[in-house]
Amino acid sequence: MKNKPQGRVLPEKIEGYGVVRPYGLSSVHTPEIKGKDPSGSSRKVLSSLEEAFRRSEIRDGMTVSFHHHLRDGDLVVNMALDVLAGMGIKDLILAPSALFPVHEDILRHVRSGTVRSIQGSVNGPVGRAASGGLFDVPIILRSHGGRVRAMETGELAVDVAVLAAPTVDEMGNVSGVYGPSACGSLGYAFADARYAKHVIAVTDNLVPYPAIPFSLPQTEVDWVVPVDRIGVPEKIVSGTLRITRDPLRLVIAEQVARVIEESGLFEDGFSMQAGAGGISLAASAFVRERMKARGITGSFISGGITGQSVEMLEEGLFTSLLDVQSFDLEAAASLARNPRHAEMGASFYASTASKGCVVDMLDVAVLGATQVDTSFNVNVNTESDGVLLHGIGGHMDTAAGSRLSVIVTPLLRGRMPMVVDHVHTITTPGETVDVVVTERGVAVNPRRKDLLENLRGKGIPLLDITDLKRMAEEMTGIPAPIPFGERIIGVVEYRDGSVIDVIRQRL
Amino acid sequence: MKNKPQGRVLPEKIEGYGVVRPYGLSSVHTPEIKGKDPSGSSRKVLSSLEEAFRRSEIRDGMTVSFHHHLRDGDLVVNMALDVLAGMGIKDLILAPSALFPVHEDILRHVRSGTVRSIQGSVNGPVGRAASGGLFDVPIILRSHGGRVRAMETGELAVDVAVLAAPTVDEMGNVSGVYGPSACGSLGYAFADARYAKHVIAVTDNLVPYPAIPFSLPQTEVDWVVPVDRIGVPEKIVSGTLRITRDPLRLVIAEQVARVIEESGLFEDGFSMQAGAGGISLAASAFVRERMKARGITGSFISGGITGQSVEMLEEGLFTSLLDVQSFDLEAAASLARNPRHAEMGASFYASTASKGCVVDMLDVAVLGATQVDTSFNVNVNTESDGVLLHGIGGHMDTAAGSRLSVIVTPLLRGRMPMVVDHVHTITTPGETVDVVVTERGVAVNPRRKDLLENLRGKGIPLLDITDLKRMAEEMTGIPAPIPFGERIIGVVEYRDGSVIDVIRQRL
Repeated sequence: MKNKPQGRVLPEKIEGYGVVRPYGLSSVHTPEIKGKDPSGSSRKVLSSLEEAFRRSEIRDGMTVSFHHHLRDGDLVVNMALDVLAGMGIKDLILAPSALFPVHEDILRHVRSGTVRSIQGSVNGPVGRAASGGLFDVPIILRSHGGRVRAMETGELAVDVAVLAAPTVDEMGNVSGVYGPSACGSLGYAFADARYAKHVIAVTDNLVPYPAIPFSLPQTEVDWVVPVDRIGVPEKIVSGTLRITRDPLRLVIAEQVARVIEESGLFEDGFSMQAGAGGISLAASAFVRERMKARGITGSFISGGITGQSVEMLEEGLFTSLLDVQSFDLEAAASLARNPRHAEMGASFYASTASKGCVVDMLDVAVLGATQVDTSFNVNVNTESDGVLLHGIGGHMDTAAGSRLSVIVTPLLRGRMPMVVDHVHTITTPGETVDVVVTERGVAVNPRRKDLLENLRGKGIPLLDITDLKRMAEEMTGIPAPIPFGERIIGVVEYRDGSVIDVIRQRL
Repeated sequence: MKNKPQGRVLPEKIEGYGVVRPYGLSSVHTPEIKGKDPSGSSRKVLSSLEEAFRRSEIRDGMTVSFHHHLRDGDLVVNMALDVLAGMGIKDLILAPSALFPVHEDILRHVRSGTVRSIQGSVNGPVGRAASGGLFDVPIILRSHGGRVRAMETGELAVDVAVLAAPTVDEMGNVSGVYGPSACGSLGYAFADARYAKHVIAVTDNLVPYPAIPFSLPQTEVDWVVPVDRIGVPEKIVSGTLRITRDPLRLVIAEQVARVIEESGLFEDGFSMQAGAGGISLAASAFVRERMKARGITGSFISGGITGQSVEMLEEGLFTSLLDVQSFDLEAAASLARNPRHAEMGASFYASTASKGCVVDMLDVAVLGATQVDTSFNVNVNTESDGVLLHGIGGHMDTAAGSRLSVIVTPLLRGRMPMVVDHVHTITTPGETVDVVVTERGVAVNPRRKDLLENLRGKGIPLLDITDLKRMAEEMTGIPAPIPFGERIIGVVEYRDGSVIDVIRQRL
């Protein structure tokens, strides 16, 4: 066998090595990239999204993923679906990390047959339509950890990932912290870039190579498509998020801080995740005061990061922020400038297929609910009226990983009790829920005798969860049953891919 | 089918979803990590390397990888092999990214049967022993890009990666820029962490969680083993590297700068890689002067980074450094403080299995040689005496990717000609080599007529490569043939995994 270009004679097989595949000129360059091309640049930059889909070999029935870091300001999902519809593509499976009201347009594409189903997270109008029976096949709901785990195991095989890229260079290095549509962390897009077969970065800010620091590397991006606008800035990141002024919610927040303070975990090295809800922000503010008063230096705040988290970092109350999603302008700006404010991908945050994620190290998670039941099971997907309106987020992930998971909820919303005998949908299983805090009292999961011991005699109004349920029902009466049909419109996957519940059509 | 913990009745199969695997309590937590364990910390921290190997299920014949960022100051390879020998493990395949004189100890473990073969890079005493026929099976030599590509494709399947970790936290987040054995970039270890089945981080600097910024994430690390010392600091990173004062080498360096200046690539956005050899450093110094004189702002410097690169970044001559290996203290310190100085993994640097790597964007690569032949093929593995002494490094990767690859070599070393009819070993194929620069003249590859055009009439002493060969032989005479045996002791893989040459036993 002759290795022609060099005139070298190579054996066909080498003992202890195996069969020889001889060198040939054709294999010099990266297959994805042309070689010593004098035109050099722009080898990945395409003039249209349609061309990018074509080069990604898009076909009927494929799975297309999106990230949600541009939130309600995202223009890319609708743009991409319009292009795909225009190309006559049918039966797509969408795999968004979350959806927002702006994505109501998806419904049109479901009706026309462009979109067949959704896996990941559905929210708002798309969830409502799903509850009404719009989709032919069930929605698969996954947590942030569950979605990335499914990509890591191959259960969710993405054919084409379409990345809204606030900044990108010609080779596909993507950053979220700069550009007119800056959104901060791109944590939920890490897995899409890594695991999708074809990756398209759509941008309104193409910058000179190399765009560093970057969040997603060129090694994972196939195509770069410049467009006029990928987002509506004022809808991407909000200004400073407001702490609730509602007295009832402030009572809840204060009790949350008291529970944390007496939990046995409130000491140096303490870590927490609270999110951006009004009660959570207020609870964080109370925790902040107590940390100062007691001279405690925490370890990290994780998850969705707010300006308040940034202030706590800068005050030295925590040593670091682990940011999977930047909720406001302050968080996005801090991520760009402070090395102690680190971006993390969803796998690092919450995947059970990883070798250990951040939620495994978390002390306290403060979490919301649309319903809690007397077995401490939590519903975050369906509202009291049985309609699918929310994704799972990191709820079941942080509840499972954290040493103390605290569910916050007013006892009533509208005229509906929030503590019930059986939640419509089990999102997060009761055995991972430690405390439920309402304005009328605090219920500790009986499994956590150690915690109950710590909280007793500290002026915290401890009640049995069944007392909370009774108090709620005394005020509202027992709500009429919801008219569900037999048809399953949603499957709630637990973070490990098992099925924890199903959601039935709302008649 | 009953989902017992919740009392939920789930169907066994859901139309449009498939078979239901029902949720069960056992699956709440990350399998690698215990759940809400009150002992919390130290879940990955083990008391000995032996325990870490045991938990990694080490067995005879497995593949164990190492990175070389601690260079000749590395204590981890020898430490690990002593432990493995003590455990009675046999027939290991070692996959180091490079070896240094300190690793001569490996020879003992080859003789005892603990180590059977090496894939990746061999250097110095181990290479010499291989040339002498020590190993039963051929060494497989791979470039930095080729090594990571082989991991990405599964051709090189690492069972256990042992990472020298200058800083690590209890969950396995590893950084190279801090700690008593700080080495700067950990670029060559990225793939080991990602692709090895089991990953052990050995450290002399265990820090509080989370160690941010980190280079290797906890999601990829199984075990953390604290030891007294992982390195000898003064042998890990050198002080400031010295530019050659040898007049002959300075002539070469000046010609390199002239070639670059007139190549047609010397304009704003210019990128280069030169490395830390004496001629390369001097060439960079001349380029630096010419950039200042002509007011050129370059794009990036890539590869192994030196203090000189850092100064050029800080002077604004380049916008960024892409650092796969920090050669000196200045480079390591800059990586820690300057966001425009970015760490990159070997895949990002040079893998043909990636969707485009840095070498694909490189304008100029200045590279060394142990021999060049009249077809522009370059040998960097074997010396003129036919003995295997060097790994490939990024040589064939940068030559293939760059728009201008410049080979620098004195015409003679000792009494041996460096330009010959046929190199002993083809490491980098002639069709990827553009120019050979010696102190006696500059030879342009006839394939590059465009380049020849640019360089003509600029006072550069252009010669035919056969003239260089003739001039060398006139001074030395034609060297006597080297007594090679028939037995193949090394296989040189090209960056894409094809075989470009074999190395035979030196008799």
